Amino acid sequence: MVIAIHGGCGTLARELLPAAEWDEVRAHLAQSLRAGWAVLAAGGPAVDAVQAAVVVLEDSPHFNAGHGAALTHEATHELDASIMEGTQGRAGAVCTVRRTRNPILAARAVMEHSGCVLLSAEAADRYAQAQGLAMVDNGYFTTPRRVKALADVQAGKAGASIRPLSEADRHGTVGAVARDARGGLAAATSTGGFNDKPAGRVGDSPLIGAGTFARDGVCAVSCTGMGELFIRHAVAYDLCARMQYAGQTLVEAGNHLVHQTMKGHGIGAGLVSVDATGVVHAPFNTLGMARGWIAADGHVHVATHEEVFDAGRC
Amino acid sequence: MVIAIHGGCGTLARELLPAAEWDEVRAHLAQSLRAGWAVLAAGGPAVDAVQAAVVVLEDSPHFNAGHGAALTHEATHELDASIMEGTQGRAGAVCTVRRTRNPILAARAVMEHSGCVLLSAEAADRYAQAQGLAMVDNGYFTTPRRVKALADVQAGKAGASIRPLSEADRHGTVGAVARDARGGLAAATSTGGFNDKPAGRVGDSPLIGAGTFARDGVCAVSCTGMGELFIRHAVAYDLCARMQYAGQTLVEAGNHLVHQTMKGHGIGAGLVSVDATGVVHAPFNTLGMARGWIAADGHVHVATHEEVFDAGRC
Repeated sequence: MVIAIHGGCGTLARELLPAAEWDEVRAHLAQSLRAGWAVLAAGGPAVDAVQAAVVVLEDSPHFNAGHGAALTHEATHELDASIMEGTQGRAGAVCTVRRTRNPILAARAVMEHSGCVLLSAEAADRYAQAQGLAMVDNGYFTTPRRVKALADVQAGKAGASIRPLSEADRHGTVGAVARDARGGLAAATSTGGFNDKPAGRVGDSPLIGAGTFARDGVCAVSCTGMGELFIRHAVAYDLCARMQYAGQTLVEAGNHLVHQTMKGHGIGAGLVSVDATGVVHAPFNTLGMARGWIAADGHVHVATHEEVFDAGRC
Repeated sequence: MVIAIHGGCGTLARELLPAAEWDEVRAHLAQSLRAGWAVLAAGGPAVDAVQAAVVVLEDSPHFNAGHGAALTHEATHELDASIMEGTQGRAGAVCTVRRTRNPILAARAVMEHSGCVLLSAEAADRYAQAQGLAMVDNGYFTTPRRVKALADVQAGKAGASIRPLSEADRHGTVGAVARDARGGLAAATSTGGFNDKPAGRVGDSPLIGAGTFARDGVCAVSCTGMGELFIRHAVAYDLCARMQYAGQTLVEAGNHLVHQTMKGHGIGAGLVSVDATGVVHAPFNTLGMARGWIAADGHVHVATHEEVFDAGRC
C-alpha cells in the first residue's frame, strides 16, 4: 500500500513564511496522508484513499484548492477537480464550479452517478447540490493570502510594481495517487487555478489524460504546473504511454516530462506518481513542491523544499 | 496536401432519409472539403484549412454541430469545439457555449488570443463576443430533426416507446484533419453532444488528447463517438503515442482504437486521421460515418455508408 500527495509546485521561498506556518503546512500534508492511509489500511480502494487525502488539502487554507483557492481576474473563485480509478478506468470531473465546498467530492459523484465524465460550471454545482454535497458561498474559498496575491498581481500588471510573478502566483494545485492492497491504482487532482486567471478558464486539473490519469498495471499520476502546457502535451496520459509503449520506468518517464518537456517550455512543473509495484516518484523543476508519501516502511514523509521530514509511523 | 473530414459516426440507416437528403448531405461534405482545400491550395496552413472545413459543417443542418446540434435534456443547445495545430502544438477550445454561432471560431480565438487552452460556458461566449465573433440566440441551432429526436428519446425513457437509442441519437460530431504543403498538421472537432444529454455535460470534442490532437511528424486526428470513453482512454493522444512510442502505423493504431478498444466497450466510434506522409485513415465501427477526403489525386471523395462517391476534381 502506498499513498503520495502534492500541494502544488508553486511553493513559496522558505523565507516568505514564518517557521510556524511551514510547520502547519507540513502538519496538513501529514494529516492528508494519514486520512488516505486510514482508508488503505482498512482494506479500502485506492480511489477512496486519494479522495480522502484531497479533501483534507481542499479544506486547508495553505493550498490552492477549496478553501484557500486562487482568485480569478474578477476576484471570484472557480474550481476544477478530477478523479480516476485505474481498475475499470472510470473517471469523473468538474470544471469552473463556484459553490461546491469540496470539488473532489463533486468529481467523484460525477464518476459514480452521472454517466458523464465532466460537468461544467453552474450545471456542475447544481449536480453536486442534487447529490447532497455541502454547498458554500463563493467567499468561503477566500483567504487573506489570496486577496493580497491578487492585489499584488493586478498592481504589477498596472505598472505599480515590477515584481515578477512567482511560481506561487502562477499556479498551485493539490493531488494524490495511491496503490491499494489489491494493487488497484487511483489519482485525484483539485485546484483553484492561478491568481488573476480569466473567468471561465479551465486548466489541466479536471481533464483526464492532462492533469490526472490512472491505469492498473501501469501508473497513477496527478500533475501541477501551468495547465495549458499539460493539456497540449497530454502529460498525465503521456506518462502512462511512455511506460506502456516505450518501456520507460515511472522515474524515467516522469523525469523526462518534468525536467525536459515542461522545462524546455520554461514551465514550472511537478507531479506525483506511483507505479504498479508501488514505486513513488514526485519530480518538480521549481524551488519547491509541497508533497508527502507513506510507502512500504509505513513512515509519514513530508516536504516543501529539498529537505524531507519524517513525521513518524502511521 | 490532404484534407479529410467526418460528420459523425451516428449516420442514420439509409432508408430513414429520402435520396434527395442524402444527396444534400454529400453535397455539404464536398462543400466542406472544397473550403478546406482552397486554403491549402493557396498555400495556407493546415489549421486554417480544418477551421474552414468545420465552419461549413457547423452551418449545415445535417450535422450535429452548430446549426443542427443536438438538444440537451432541458431542450437547449450547449456546444463544444477544439482546434490544434501540430507545428508548435498550440490549441484552443470552448465547452458548453450557447450563443456563439460557430464554436470552432471561438476555439481558434482562444488559441490565438487568450493565453488559455479551454474556456467554459458563459465566460467562453462572452470571450467570443469580445473577439467580434457572430452571436446568435440559442434557438438558431435548433432544427426540426433534433426536436423530434429529443421527443423520441424522452418518450422512450418515459416508457411510451421501446425503440432503442440509435447511434444517431447517441452521438454525432464533425471534425477535420489536414496536412498542408509544408507538412504542417492540424485537427479540429465541433459538436452538440448527444440528444437529451445532461446540462453541463462536456464530451471529448473540446478536450485536447481526447477528441482532437495534432503533432507534426506524427499525425492529426479528430474523433467521433461516445465521448466519455474517448476521454477515459485519451484516444486522440493515444493514436499519436502508439505511432510515436510503439511504432504502429496510422492505420494499425486507428484500427486498434476503433475496432478493438472502443468496440470492446460496445461503443460506436470513428475518427479521421492523417499521418506525416499524407496517408488518410477514417475507420468507424458503426453502420456509417459521414466522411470525405481530398488527397494526392485531387479528387473529392465523400461517403455516408460503405459506398464512396467521387465528386470530381477540385
